Amino acid sequence: MNAGPSALFTDFYSLTMAQGYWKNRMNNRAVFEMFFRRQPFGGGFSVFAGLATLVEQLKGFSFSGEDLAYLDSLHFFEDPFLDYLKSFRFSGSLWAMDEGTIVFPQEPLIRVDSNLIESQIIEGLVLNTINFQSLIATKTARVYLASGRGSIMEFGLRRAQGTDGAMSASRAAFIGGAAGTSNVLAGKAWGIPVLGTMAHSWVMSFPGEEEAFRAYARLYPDKTIFLIDTYDTLKSGVPNALKAGRELAAAGKNFGVRLDSGDMHYLSVEVRKILDAAGFPKATITVSNDLDEHIVDTLTKAGAPIDTWGVGTQMVTGGSEASFTGVYKLAAKDEGGGVLAPTMKFSDNPEKTTNPGVKQVWRLRDEQGWTLADIMSLDDSESPPPGEAPDILEKGKRYAFWHPQADYRHFHHVIEGNAEALLKKKLDHGCSPESPSLSAIQQKVKDGLDSFDQSYKRILNPHIYKVSVTERLRTLKLKLIKSYLGEL
Amino acid sequence: MNAGPSALFTDFYSLTMAQGYWKNRMNNRAVFEMFFRRQPFGGGFSVFAGLATLVEQLKGFSFSGEDLAYLDSLHFFEDPFLDYLKSFRFSGSLWAMDEGTIVFPQEPLIRVDSNLIESQIIEGLVLNTINFQSLIATKTARVYLASGRGSIMEFGLRRAQGTDGAMSASRAAFIGGAAGTSNVLAGKAWGIPVLGTMAHSWVMSFPGEEEAFRAYARLYPDKTIFLIDTYDTLKSGVPNALKAGRELAAAGKNFGVRLDSGDMHYLSVEVRKILDAAGFPKATITVSNDLDEHIVDTLTKAGAPIDTWGVGTQMVTGGSEASFTGVYKLAAKDEGGGVLAPTMKFSDNPEKTTNPGVKQVWRLRDEQGWTLADIMSLDDSESPPPGEAPDILEKGKRYAFWHPQADYRHFHHVIEGNAEALLKKKLDHGCSPESPSLSAIQQKVKDGLDSFDQSYKRILNPHIYKVSVTERLRTLKLKLIKSYLGEL
Repeated sequence: MNAGPSALFTDFYSLTMAQGYWKNRMNNRAVFEMFFRRQPFGGGFSVFAGLATLVEQLKGFSFSGEDLAYLDSLHFFEDPFLDYLKSFRFSGSLWAMDEGTIVFPQEPLIRVDSNLIESQIIEGLVLNTINFQSLIATKTARVYLASGRGSIMEFGLRRAQGTDGAMSASRAAFIGGAAGTSNVLAGKAWGIPVLGTMAHSWVMSFPGEEEAFRAYARLYPDKTIFLIDTYDTLKSGVPNALKAGRELAAAGKNFGVRLDSGDMHYLSVEVRKILDAAGFPKATITVSNDLDEHIVDTLTKAGAPIDTWGVGTQMVTGGSEASFTGVYKLAAKDEGGGVLAPTMKFSDNPEKTTNPGVKQVWRLRDEQGWTLADIMSLDDSESPPPGEAPDILEKGKRYAFWHPQADYRHFHHVIEGNAEALLKKKLDHGCSPESPSLSAIQQKVKDGLDSFDQSYKRILNPHIYKVSVTERLRTLKLKLIKSYLGEL
Repeated sequence: MNAGPSALFTDFYSLTMAQGYWKNRMNNRAVFEMFFRRQPFGGGFSVFAGLATLVEQLKGFSFSGEDLAYLDSLHFFEDPFLDYLKSFRFSGSLWAMDEGTIVFPQEPLIRVDSNLIESQIIEGLVLNTINFQSLIATKTARVYLASGRGSIMEFGLRRAQGTDGAMSASRAAFIGGAAGTSNVLAGKAWGIPVLGTMAHSWVMSFPGEEEAFRAYARLYPDKTIFLIDTYDTLKSGVPNALKAGRELAAAGKNFGVRLDSGDMHYLSVEVRKILDAAGFPKATITVSNDLDEHIVDTLTKAGAPIDTWGVGTQMVTGGSEASFTGVYKLAAKDEGGGVLAPTMKFSDNPEKTTNPGVKQVWRLRDEQGWTLADIMSLDDSESPPPGEAPDILEKGKRYAFWHPQADYRHFHHVIEGNAEALLKKKLDHGCSPESPSLSAIQQKVKDGLDSFDQSYKRILNPHIYKVSVTERLRTLKLKLIKSYLGEL
């Protein structure tokens, strides 16, 4: 399911253009960057996810004999080019932020340093993988924060967008803070804890609710959560759960109940009272029913006594926002002579104009570790242009940082704490460092969220985090804009 | 990518409940039905899609040795049950509507006639496959209708939800009326026409726009569409497209242009004027840029001279609605003695109460072939209860049909045209009839849409199509409700 797809998993124009580059002997070095345009869900942050999946898939990304026969059948491609594709492999390098980094619009998340043909053919795979997993990791982090860092069960398999929509969503949801998944195959693939309760059909398969509950409790005395809304939550579900629960308690076991319909605040309060009065203050309450971060936030703030949240549809699809705005743009190319020249895309839509050149992103922190701002620089430390200093940030020095669009806005800053270069080499000629465990990536997200002020994490109308550019990047951008305008 | 997933692709509770049924010797015959609760996108119809994918996946749905070792490692399952799973296959029968049928809420789209364990383990696969493909086929049919049955190119790979999110979306979009896809692997997998233009990076890879256009036209003289917004659509893109286009025209070839930013109405009108004035009335205009059915509808009604629509993100994810509301509920079960007893689910949310029993759906048409209404009946034609006639609809006879919720609303109707039974056997003990070609399924959608009055197909606030129940189904439902209320 998660094996590297065939390199036909690409947009048709990538192949027609690739043939053009190949025939015109234009397959020079080129650097593409992936960035995104705006935060999803009206939020203040995103979680970068999907990197390990992408790296694994890139290693196997190639054309089989069948694939080439199919391409041949389209009557678009010449035999010598198909021969070239036979040995196609991604041979370049991939730079990226660590998976689980908290990220912001305009920042390059990934840099592909390769040649025109390779970078073009892998574009669809890069965007598909990172866009989706980042969307879901971000959505889940929002749900997780809204619950007061509570226990989130991901239940999305049945409403996810296809088999891999479910698998990748389970992975990304765990990264974003979910405690586990109902998807057993995802449990096997990534070691995510698998979780579940019981279905209405279980309750309906027995002559009565009480028998259904007792039968389940006998089977799984350590893990019983009674689904109590099949007939009537308060009149039938809770009394029957208490009967079966008393047997468990006699054997020294705890139990829980799940609410799947009705008003979650009213019912959770009433059920809590009944459980407490019956002597079960430790019996847990799980809720589910088309939850998202806004409903979870409302219930949490109202003090609803909910222990665990079962979240499916909205979390594994993004709900009202089903895509992440990641794009992949040419940042620099070798126009001959082996020197990379920065490029930028102009557009009738000003927000579609890109930042030129191969870039690095620096995260500034104060001495206590609080995150202050991100800075985009030119990553030419090894070969700065003649007469220029490398565009790197050093502790103790004072810099001017500029707003990436509004020319006149800037600030001066002395680097006091740590200025971390976020883009690191993650794949080089087919070799990659071992990816951290999924738990370690989840922990990175949690630690990352902790380092940002609360105002950036507000569910609604958050503070906008500052992403600025260095003086050198700003100067380059203005120079290219002027040169472009002069040509018109 | 589309091979049958492991049977671990299921919710954990399906396996824990399955073990319970197995240990309690409760694995009796059970019939589950899949239906959906409301039309997506505020629309008046949905397109049923994903059936052939589901049938193929069900045939291979099983547990490998590795899968069983993983289950064993969870310490939830006993060895004899794992032994049973070793030979697990879906051995029941699957009834369904033809793929491409126009469908409505509450109607069973699929009926799984099997036993409790099998039906439970396949639940996630059934819902995942049908929910997603039906969502995307429906969305695409809306875009297709909004365009005045125009030419829709599906461009969604880079923003789809994972690899299979892209693959399944390409399949479903074609069913819903797309002319082709940019996803080459989907082209190979299902014979969908693959389509594409050029990227901004192509244009930026040449010293100038004119050279980039000429180079492409030389390569693909029969299929050139110039992307004209890299620098400035009207000042630079169109003049350069004309230069390269004149060369093509001299060789007797046509060409097209693509707009990817700016105001699509203004620009398409201006570009059309320029192309016409230059003597290229046949040069085509393609537009793209986050289109959905509402934008397409507005442009079409305003008379924008657009030939082809490139639609990606919104179409392959559903956009503002990223899931289909399909559910899977127990309709009848053998409580011993080999006789199926109808069941229904009650709920604190009245709209979650189901219709009981094994059902058939009849589509009534008038003598001209216009679709009039759908009727749900009890499918017990082979063994009606003693003293009852089989619940089937015959031409020339008069019936009373009832509103499925509002008890007092009903109408009488004499069947004049064709009453088609929509649910047919599609898989039986591992054998299935050959699926129609994808083109035939697409044609079925188009013909189906043609048979419904325009009012049901309105993009906004459509007429609600009538889905009623027979007198016998209504009587059964009332009887079960009364018996349930009497028990409380």
